[in-house]
Amino acid sequence: MQDLSELTQRASELDGNDPIAHIVEEYERPEGWIFFDSNSVGPVPKTARPAANALIDDWIALRRRGWAERDWVDMPAILGDLLSPMIGAEKGTTVVCDNTTINLYKATGHALAVNQERTIILTQKDNFPTDIHVVQGFERANPSLEVRYVETEEEALAALSSDVAVCTFSHVGYKSGQRWNMEKFNRAAQALGVLTIWDVSHSAGAVPVLARESNADYIVGCGYKYLSTGPGGPAFIYVRPDLSEKAWPPVCGWMGHADIYAFAGDYEPHGGIRRFISGTPMVGANQIAHCAAQIYQKFAPKDIWARHESLSNFFIEALQQSCGDLGVEIASPLNYNQRGGHVTFKAPGAGHVVEALIDAKVVSSFRKPDAIRFGLSPVSLTHAQVVEAVGRLQKILKEEIWRDPKYANVSV
Amino acid sequence: MQDLSELTQRASELDGNDPIAHIVEEYERPEGWIFFDSNSVGPVPKTARPAANALIDDWIALRRRGWAERDWVDMPAILGDLLSPMIGAEKGTTVVCDNTTINLYKATGHALAVNQERTIILTQKDNFPTDIHVVQGFERANPSLEVRYVETEEEALAALSSDVAVCTFSHVGYKSGQRWNMEKFNRAAQALGVLTIWDVSHSAGAVPVLARESNADYIVGCGYKYLSTGPGGPAFIYVRPDLSEKAWPPVCGWMGHADIYAFAGDYEPHGGIRRFISGTPMVGANQIAHCAAQIYQKFAPKDIWARHESLSNFFIEALQQSCGDLGVEIASPLNYNQRGGHVTFKAPGAGHVVEALIDAKVVSSFRKPDAIRFGLSPVSLTHAQVVEAVGRLQKILKEEIWRDPKYANVSV
Repeated sequence: MQDLSELTQRASELDGNDPIAHIVEEYERPEGWIFFDSNSVGPVPKTARPAANALIDDWIALRRRGWAERDWVDMPAILGDLLSPMIGAEKGTTVVCDNTTINLYKATGHALAVNQERTIILTQKDNFPTDIHVVQGFERANPSLEVRYVETEEEALAALSSDVAVCTFSHVGYKSGQRWNMEKFNRAAQALGVLTIWDVSHSAGAVPVLARESNADYIVGCGYKYLSTGPGGPAFIYVRPDLSEKAWPPVCGWMGHADIYAFAGDYEPHGGIRRFISGTPMVGANQIAHCAAQIYQKFAPKDIWARHESLSNFFIEALQQSCGDLGVEIASPLNYNQRGGHVTFKAPGAGHVVEALIDAKVVSSFRKPDAIRFGLSPVSLTHAQVVEAVGRLQKILKEEIWRDPKYANVSV
Repeated sequence: MQDLSELTQRASELDGNDPIAHIVEEYERPEGWIFFDSNSVGPVPKTARPAANALIDDWIALRRRGWAERDWVDMPAILGDLLSPMIGAEKGTTVVCDNTTINLYKATGHALAVNQERTIILTQKDNFPTDIHVVQGFERANPSLEVRYVETEEEALAALSSDVAVCTFSHVGYKSGQRWNMEKFNRAAQALGVLTIWDVSHSAGAVPVLARESNADYIVGCGYKYLSTGPGGPAFIYVRPDLSEKAWPPVCGWMGHADIYAFAGDYEPHGGIRRFISGTPMVGANQIAHCAAQIYQKFAPKDIWARHESLSNFFIEALQQSCGDLGVEIASPLNYNQRGGHVTFKAPGAGHVVEALIDAKVVSSFRKPDAIRFGLSPVSLTHAQVVEAVGRLQKILKEEIWRDPKYANVSV
């Protein structure tokens, strides 16, 4: 088994040469702990606590006047504009609201209204459950629709036809960490009039998502993972500008009306993306989300993505070097362009190892039956922390610490 | 013009005899201010600030482990159970999630699936915009559906037929403050197989809502008004227990699955109300909502409702006595059983009066063209505050303070 001194030296050089190394200062970093769970809950902006207290202050002092005196009503669009560079979108094309499931539903319903003469919905067999459930709900409600399942990118391309209304795919598989080629697929789909919905929950905020450049139709995703909008924080939806106005959204609501202050009875959808806002914004959650959104204004997305590439390539290298002979096997693609925010690997004891890692102050996550996932935050981790964590893992595997009965119960 | 000494004396007696007068101690009451805007944003539980900070603590320390070590996942059902007495519902019949628009959508879609051979949706012409927009969205998406509009309870009863799939009504009109008779309407609807959805945003937490006793089919409502779940806090949905399982919800999502930890591809709806949860819960918002929900465990709903009746009847009496000769006219029904959480009245200068009241530290709200609304919180107001506020209003009207140019701009 290799000692880590060379890796430690490399980490020091990589951190030293990192042009945005100071980005980690924007986030809380509790002493001693190393978090690799940004694929579940991202890091905490230092401004989150004052923002939460400011909201309580406003609630006490302003009450309903907050609607007029604060940005409570406009925040879904404000946040959409602030986060849009992280998904390669232009201003005015993205709103932050609801959760990913609801936004998947809105995108699917809208796409089916645009392509209403078509009957097939494609999705991935291994897609995240909620993504599959949403389209199964549409299939159930409309007997003329049929959901078809594909496993690989090749299969997906082959399944395209002029009968397909819409595809709903995860950009990055939540288990495998495998990233699909959005641009290539969008081009093939568009040639046949097929609409595409990409769930970028496991890529946005970590690896490049290029809404405009890839000519995506719909993009939805989770805010509380790499993008740090806070536990259960709001999700987002992007719709290609020339597509938004081709149909009403399925959920028509007051906050998506063309003129909310008219209190009009008859629904008239807002021009562009705002029609995809449904009802009252999640004011408190948005205020927390705004903290992370502001940090992104200080750094170029390409620098953040480059940082993720460096951290995760280095993680794989360190893992292979130091734990390769301890039974660790990388399950994610080794080619960075085929990977998402997290690296999945297999190791003896899997779930128990994840529990033992927590005792060693390293937080990762486990997915049945035998996958360990390390979600790498490009905004709060350092290369030095990567080596440190790999060292702690090495010790757990080498000394078989994970066999201790106290790690028998594995949380999911 | 009457002086207020007799009313002040009456208020003192009413407060003195109030069996739950101490409930107001549970809420923040900033010095000098009197809030009558619980029809927009309700009062702040004193526990809200520590709860917000505890969430930030958990986010920093636990990150993804919060899903397992805290009640983040189960909170929609926990909150539903805690709040259900305030809508006269049994445990296990209500969940707290999403916003009112989304919940109206879920209820309507479910009702249309249950009554799928029927084609008519009834709603109120003066319903809150989002309630109307939701059903217009269904009408747009399905050409066989037709929305019909009614104005009065009599008209609504007369419009019932075996072609009507579902009615979606506000229990209390957001402008008029008029309360409809749920029980009477439910009975008539049920006799014809018509399903009913009640939006109780302007009644829940103020006046009796009796889900079970009135045999309501669906009830949805806003959390952040009288129920104090915080600005943009989560809404709720109740579905009659024997009705939930008659169809899938329109938005099928992971969190409504029968076994969320199975990460199953195929959707299988949870038994009962939990199928109406869509995706990831609003963790932070739920934590704030939990503060108010806990307060409700210490007081009987009937005592809270009695307190609202006393406060709002006293408000009308005080208003008529002290401002009747200053042009004030009550627009809400005078019969308490026909009123909701707020009292609407007309006064010379309306919107300007509301602005001048804010300068006098009384917060109410204005609705075009000429309505002033006082939303009376039964948990944070006292009878003494009611007289005090009416006195400040009297002064503004008598001295025509509202004509000051600084009150020219009226916020909505």
